[in-house]
Amino acid sequence: MSTEQRTAVVIGTGTIGLGWISLFLGQGLRVRVCSRRPDARRVVAEAIELHAPFLPPGSADPADLAARLEFEPDVRRAVEGADVVQENVPEQLELKQELFGRIGEAAAPETLLLSSTSTLLPDAIGARMGDSARLVVGHPFNPPHVVPLVEVVGGERTHPEAVAEAVAFYRSVGKVPIVLRKPIHAFVANRLQSALLQESVHLVREGVVTLSELDAVVTNSIGLRWATVGPFHAFHLGGGQGGLRHWLSSLGANLEAGWRGLGRPPMDEETLELLLEQADKAFGGSSYEELVRARDRRQTAVLGALAEVEAAEA
Amino acid sequence: MSTEQRTAVVIGTGTIGLGWISLFLGQGLRVRVCSRRPDARRVVAEAIELHAPFLPPGSADPADLAARLEFEPDVRRAVEGADVVQENVPEQLELKQELFGRIGEAAAPETLLLSSTSTLLPDAIGARMGDSARLVVGHPFNPPHVVPLVEVVGGERTHPEAVAEAVAFYRSVGKVPIVLRKPIHAFVANRLQSALLQESVHLVREGVVTLSELDAVVTNSIGLRWATVGPFHAFHLGGGQGGLRHWLSSLGANLEAGWRGLGRPPMDEETLELLLEQADKAFGGSSYEELVRARDRRQTAVLGALAEVEAAEA
Repeated sequence: MSTEQRTAVVIGTGTIGLGWISLFLGQGLRVRVCSRRPDARRVVAEAIELHAPFLPPGSADPADLAARLEFEPDVRRAVEGADVVQENVPEQLELKQELFGRIGEAAAPETLLLSSTSTLLPDAIGARMGDSARLVVGHPFNPPHVVPLVEVVGGERTHPEAVAEAVAFYRSVGKVPIVLRKPIHAFVANRLQSALLQESVHLVREGVVTLSELDAVVTNSIGLRWATVGPFHAFHLGGGQGGLRHWLSSLGANLEAGWRGLGRPPMDEETLELLLEQADKAFGGSSYEELVRARDRRQTAVLGALAEVEAAEA
Repeated sequence: MSTEQRTAVVIGTGTIGLGWISLFLGQGLRVRVCSRRPDARRVVAEAIELHAPFLPPGSADPADLAARLEFEPDVRRAVEGADVVQENVPEQLELKQELFGRIGEAAAPETLLLSSTSTLLPDAIGARMGDSARLVVGHPFNPPHVVPLVEVVGGERTHPEAVAEAVAFYRSVGKVPIVLRKPIHAFVANRLQSALLQESVHLVREGVVTLSELDAVVTNSIGLRWATVGPFHAFHLGGGQGGLRHWLSSLGANLEAGWRGLGRPPMDEETLELLLEQADKAFGGSSYEELVRARDRRQTAVLGALAEVEAAEA
């Protein structure tokens, strides 16, 4: 399928659905939005306006993007003739099962069916389909129009060809798809994030740092580091000439002890209120839109800088 | 003390000491290196050559840097007349205690004494000093000449004024110091890193992803994210208009369950060999120096891009 002719159906207009809409439009696809929200046209227009400056490969004109946009609230009609469907409804198994049941009846057999689910697996989501061989999880990271990663997960009933097509599709729209070799609850990135959050909550609860100080620690150390090299790569370099072997053998014995010493905070009412009180101080002065623009300016700038380094090295 | 006149003594010429030497020289300080290595001059010259292209505020000429460099292997003579001492000897309590005992006898009372220790506390390190009121932990992140964070930790015997001076000193050389409000083992960033590493080892052991795939997941998602906004800030935006309150209330109940489901891998011989085998495949084709340059080009590019965004917003 050539870029010009492809039609992507985006189902759901929450934060993730809106990001996909902007990204697919920015990449030259026709986008058919399937949403039951009565204000879907307004919400999508506002999102495109907000995202357009930060779309790869560069800032886009919202009017150009909107020219390739259609709306069709009926799911069966929406998926007719689609090349790709990206589903983004709330994270409820029954809701997704029922939806994919209807999609399976109406979509052409060659349509690639993708779900943004962050916790459910294809076999479960596709339980009410006659054939879920074309259903693949493509879990993006917020915001999907900026962050490159898509975690790709097939089920036992998914055809390997569909997984390969999902990878090719996401690459064609500038994403970095990583296929999980085994299904696992919450996939990879959110599990890593959860591990870091647990310790973050512990450190704020213990009064070692405030929520804002913790954020500053991360952006000024491991965030910068992990934007450029992953954790294993970083530790390989931390070991100097001896690499990861030296790093693990000099610190390895202490690693397990360190893991045992990590916090196991409760997420109780008191903890929640402490975090929210500190969050209000940290972010209360800015609107959601202002904060999103500030984040996306930075993320886009970082991606641009890294792409320049890659190009210079090539 | 004005920048031109300051003399920093750097004790130890491992990876961290070498980074401080390059950074301080790049910031215009006179640097006196105190090292027992017979090849200290060569090692320092090589490090300066390697680091010079990536020093803030911009690429530096190694010859200009070396012009402000001295060597004095005797600790007592090295610290005479110093404004600041940054200690970077191996992480052994007795070694550091003995060293600071001698430093305390020889240094002028106004000299600021800083330790790069990643696990020890000032009161312990300064146990053999007559007065450790000027001793502060200033724990950098590798590589110290690039990564902005310095974790600053005072002890019960540390004078608050010395902590404030440490903060001012690190800011004056372009670092981002964060003062811990309470001492805690391994401080903040390494605890967070340890939490993420534990889950990373779990996921590779379970065969969900390879070591390289895990690194790619991180650089393309949470690394990019956390280079620009910290974890709490990111979750605040993940909650949309409702912010952190919405995010925690919609996912909060599942947070603790998610934490309980995280891996607790052993760091046994089998795990070690699996990681090292995958690390060889991932990094074996490049020398340490090539990998360091590639990392530092990227980290410097990211910092430059973020500084440009800050400047444009100001």
